[in-house]
Amino acid sequence: MGDPSGIGPEVIAAALTLPTLWRGAIPLVFGDPGVLERALGARRFRRLRLESFGAGRPSAPAIVPLDAGSTSEPGKPDPAGARLQFDSIVRACNAMARGDADALCTAPVSKAQIATVEPGFVGHTEFLAERFHSTVLMLMAGPRLRVALATTHLPLSEVPRKLDRGSLAANLRLLDAELRKRFAIQSPRLAVTGLNPHAGEQGHFGREEIDVIRPAVEDAVASGVDVSGPFSADGLFPRVAQGAYDAVLAMYHDQGLIPVKLADFESAVNVTLGLPFVRTSPDHGVAYDLAGKDEADPRSTIAAVRLAIRLARGS
Amino acid sequence: MGDPSGIGPEVIAAALTLPTLWRGAIPLVFGDPGVLERALGARRFRRLRLESFGAGRPSAPAIVPLDAGSTSEPGKPDPAGARLQFDSIVRACNAMARGDADALCTAPVSKAQIATVEPGFVGHTEFLAERFHSTVLMLMAGPRLRVALATTHLPLSEVPRKLDRGSLAANLRLLDAELRKRFAIQSPRLAVTGLNPHAGEQGHFGREEIDVIRPAVEDAVASGVDVSGPFSADGLFPRVAQGAYDAVLAMYHDQGLIPVKLADFESAVNVTLGLPFVRTSPDHGVAYDLAGKDEADPRSTIAAVRLAIRLARGS
Repeated sequence: MGDPSGIGPEVIAAALTLPTLWRGAIPLVFGDPGVLERALGARRFRRLRLESFGAGRPSAPAIVPLDAGSTSEPGKPDPAGARLQFDSIVRACNAMARGDADALCTAPVSKAQIATVEPGFVGHTEFLAERFHSTVLMLMAGPRLRVALATTHLPLSEVPRKLDRGSLAANLRLLDAELRKRFAIQSPRLAVTGLNPHAGEQGHFGREEIDVIRPAVEDAVASGVDVSGPFSADGLFPRVAQGAYDAVLAMYHDQGLIPVKLADFESAVNVTLGLPFVRTSPDHGVAYDLAGKDEADPRSTIAAVRLAIRLARGS
Repeated sequence: MGDPSGIGPEVIAAALTLPTLWRGAIPLVFGDPGVLERALGARRFRRLRLESFGAGRPSAPAIVPLDAGSTSEPGKPDPAGARLQFDSIVRACNAMARGDADALCTAPVSKAQIATVEPGFVGHTEFLAERFHSTVLMLMAGPRLRVALATTHLPLSEVPRKLDRGSLAANLRLLDAELRKRFAIQSPRLAVTGLNPHAGEQGHFGREEIDVIRPAVEDAVASGVDVSGPFSADGLFPRVAQGAYDAVLAMYHDQGLIPVKLADFESAVNVTLGLPFVRTSPDHGVAYDLAGKDEADPRSTIAAVRLAIRLARGS
């Protein structure tokens, strides 16, 4: 459910009450039933009955009831809500570990709120990687572009020294394997961006392409991955949008997310690759300023649920 | 004309022979007449007669004949061609300084070739800035996005320390003034990107937004510029493409050019702001591998000429 004081409950309610979304799939929610009831009640077009649930594979829409012990007022986070956010992640992970469900879609949490009750918490993705002893890779997947990120949330000045040959080659092998397994792409064609303008122009504007990225590409090719580059990033994305490659490995956050959000606005979904199960999430935060006003846009959550179902089917 | 051995002569010939492009405007070419004749001759649909010209304002399509003294074979640059490239820039600048013409559109040069005969030459834009004692700003202008770059061709690792408050504020004032003067936008609305992911997220992923960019924005606002930001770059560009701002100041090459090329592929034009006249250029290089094969795509040059004419009229 994410933060019960954010827009999570509303966008979950919107997804839950969209009948076409769930054909052949069963939703199981981890969160405060009262908060969800309130969010469902605010939606006029369909009432939904959720069974209270413990463990096992649900046979009908169900909720694992977690007591917030909090007022969970929209827009007003409190420590009990912070505890609920963390507990819902832990309980959902336990369910995934038992095989109770096939895919996990996470609503937005407040990292700052959770850190007040669980010091050291830095985000869903990092928590999942540790919980499942996995090396993960963030992929933004939209209808026109799929872009994985070699680095994510760090200052731009730290990006150049974070790139290393071994990790980049491992990212490419993981991306290749997950596109085959989850996206049912038989022979994925991958491309890699450069770090510098014009991919360094033969070393004139930086040497990372020569010293790090190209050797990583060569390592991945030697492992059987069909990957090209490094390419000048500005020239690459129009070609990818026209179908030249199945996915791109970008070197840093803005280099990858600027094209995805421009090409696939509102329909791009964050997918965590490398876990033993499918995990997706909408691409927005808790948005306290919008919570409880029935103004939150549920499209990203609906897209995240739709993709989770599709990827869990491997199709 | 740019490099006579590159695709410049071909794309110039394509632009010269497009009658609708020149309504009310007169082309004046600086280059080797023999090379241009060859390129024009290869185009079947229209013959064009260029008068040989010295100085003054031409009254009909004209060429200032510069002798390459070179074979100028397509795809095979030589020192005489390098000399011609440089001379054509110098002669065109002299003409602009005299007021013989209202706008300058430059065909691609080889910086490496010119540097063999004129050591220290690093590019058209730098040459023009020095020749006209101007502080210039590179703007990529397309139908959907206009994006200026605070930094251009340098390694990504050098970008963070290149940003300074005074230069950014000066960039914003120049962008505002040029949008009013050249683009006839009465009250330009500007936006600025952050440097770091999520524009630093309140200092969590870097402090340049707090220490440098936001103060520069405040300085520009104090000068009467309507500018907002710094914004998270991935969230900003979709809003700009929908019309929320007239132009963006991006912090570095890929951050600005990735969205422009994705949104305005083949129709984006490089404009140099800050000179005493309008200067545009197509967004590609000499492309020796394509030269002389009648395969070069002239759309970017045509767009660059069209925009130069429009901006010279201030409309």
